[in-house]
Amino acid sequence: MQMEGVKGVTMRMMVGRGDGAPNFAMRHFTVEPGGHTPHHRHDYEHEVFIVDGAGRVESDGEFHDIKAGDVLFVKANSVHQFVNQGAQPLEFLCLVPVTFDCGKTTPGSG
Amino acid sequence: MQMEGVKGVTMRMMVGRGDGAPNFAMRHFTVEPGGHTPHHRHDYEHEVFIVDGAGRVESDGEFHDIKAGDVLFVKANSVHQFVNQGAQPLEFLCLVPVTFDCGKTTPGSG
Repeated sequence: MQMEGVKGVTMRMMVGRGDGAPNFAMRHFTVEPGGHTPHHRHDYEHEVFIVDGAGRVESDGEFHDIKAGDVLFVKANSVHQFVNQGAQPLEFLCLVPVTFDCGKTTPGSG
Repeated sequence: MQMEGVKGVTMRMMVGRGDGAPNFAMRHFTVEPGGHTPHHRHDYEHEVFIVDGAGRVESDGEFHDIKAGDVLFVKANSVHQFVNQGAQPLEFLCLVPVTFDCGKTTPGSG
């Protein structure tokens, strides 16, 4: 991913609008050791499942260690970031609605 | 799960309406060896990630072997069933929209 505030992150679309997904999209992320997702917020939620590895997540100023098997619900408009400070890749699924805010197309849901 | 056509299946709600999920719900299923989900269809989609184990899925009369790491998109109204004919538990995430068919509450999304 080439995006401001992103380091060492790869995204794969697993099920998206292009597959005919009418309501929500499943994406697979890999965060390399030392990498992180953007420290940001947006007007739609995430539902996350940690597939492999470990790391740390921030949600509205609170930090939580995360590891394979954990599930996270990141509510709309909460500030969040995933950080991999470990030695193994961090892999997770992150699902988003395909639209938000009364019909706008969600970025990264295609 | 106590439901007609179900054998050896446990469901855990990971993120649902009760958590404030506005658009879709994440459920975790375990199918014991010899178990299966119902052979059915409904007017909403599934997005599925196989977490552990292996098994077989039917979709509209086609059969596919499934294993950990696989992703499935079960479109609305396709007949489907998950079967564990192996020796290990089959574990998967199955996500559904929280409403379908113009606002009806999706069963198992709470």
